[in-house]
Amino acid sequence: MIYNHEDILGLEKRFRANFINSLGGFKSVVLIGTKSTQGNENLAVFNSLFHLGANPALCGMVVRPNEKKQNTLGNILQTKFYTINHIMLSFYKQAHQCSAKYDDGISEFNEVGLTPEYLDGISAPFVQESVVKFGCEFVQKIDIELNGTTIIIGKIIKVVVPDHCLGNDGFLNLEQAGSITNSGLDSYHTTQTISRLSYAKPFVEVSTL
Amino acid sequence: MIYNHEDILGLEKRFRANFINSLGGFKSVVLIGTKSTQGNENLAVFNSLFHLGANPALCGMVVRPNEKKQNTLGNILQTKFYTINHIMLSFYKQAHQCSAKYDDGISEFNEVGLTPEYLDGISAPFVQESVVKFGCEFVQKIDIELNGTTIIIGKIIKVVVPDHCLGNDGFLNLEQAGSITNSGLDSYHTTQTISRLSYAKPFVEVSTL
Repeated sequence: MIYNHEDILGLEKRFRANFINSLGGFKSVVLIGTKSTQGNENLAVFNSLFHLGANPALCGMVVRPNEKKQNTLGNILQTKFYTINHIMLSFYKQAHQCSAKYDDGISEFNEVGLTPEYLDGISAPFVQESVVKFGCEFVQKIDIELNGTTIIIGKIIKVVVPDHCLGNDGFLNLEQAGSITNSGLDSYHTTQTISRLSYAKPFVEVSTL
Repeated sequence: MIYNHEDILGLEKRFRANFINSLGGFKSVVLIGTKSTQGNENLAVFNSLFHLGANPALCGMVVRPNEKKQNTLGNILQTKFYTINHIMLSFYKQAHQCSAKYDDGISEFNEVGLTPEYLDGISAPFVQESVVKFGCEFVQKIDIELNGTTIIIGKIIKVVVPDHCLGNDGFLNLEQAGSITNSGLDSYHTTQTISRLSYAKPFVEVSTL
């Protein structure tokens, strides 16, 4: 089935949200932990994390212009720190519940039953139950005028990973760690490795590692 | 294991590339199809696609400052059109091979054995073998001075999806379609659905859909 521009414009709002979100493919899904200057802890689901560079270690994410996500944004801009916690199969329902619109001042950690954990040098809370997580320092904010979203860029300054999932070459086996992926707005998936492939060179067939 | 900022800075270059790329979680992995003003077709692997909004339908991606990716960027800026093609299990090795540094003017389509396909209104080639794909019109370029990367934002103006994978609510079953995901720089994975979860509301337990 082919959808042309006018077809896309004419889609019912909720249908379009599911449809366009699905097109992005399987995505990273994480919990962003922040703390307000008043000391309120906040935990929010994001599925727009992207790799921006390894040297310096940078990542980006899109913040939508809704109240829930604006709390996260406000905390980041005020305190400069946030944590990014992989969602594991063991707590994916609790993680999803963090997207509910709780009143300001209510901690999602308490409501969904996840544990805040503080590590040296990062004022924002990590999720103790997450085994792959990292702390970021805010470095840049980019306002996207087209639709009122904001891209936040952060420098990765602390990383927590399980030793046994880390290869000699720096590759982290996320499947072994228990990280999951999502698609669309609300679908969660585990993964099964097909293979790693060798660095591609012209006129040389790639091989499995 | 905890890596602090100095530890991260001290990592060997290749180790750090694998490590930091792994932290982003499972990612969308796609082939970007473009055509130069001279008519040369180009196909490149990107794993930094992110959803920016459904209304208007927008997506973003990061273009790294290497020659290979700059060809894609140049074509997009000059012709204003590009295609985003999901990588399926059936051709993931050919897709990976597209990341090899072929000389200018050599078409990755020919070299790896994928078929260019042209659809009305988009001057860039789609990948015929991909069953989930969409055409974009360039709308914004954001230069990231921190590391010389570029974020490209495009409007989704044509979508091709298999009928039988599209739900009544607009959710596209990518697993059924055969789209795969990647992690790190070179690892490919199929997925298995855990479940879809209901829209989260405060003080109401989420349910599986």
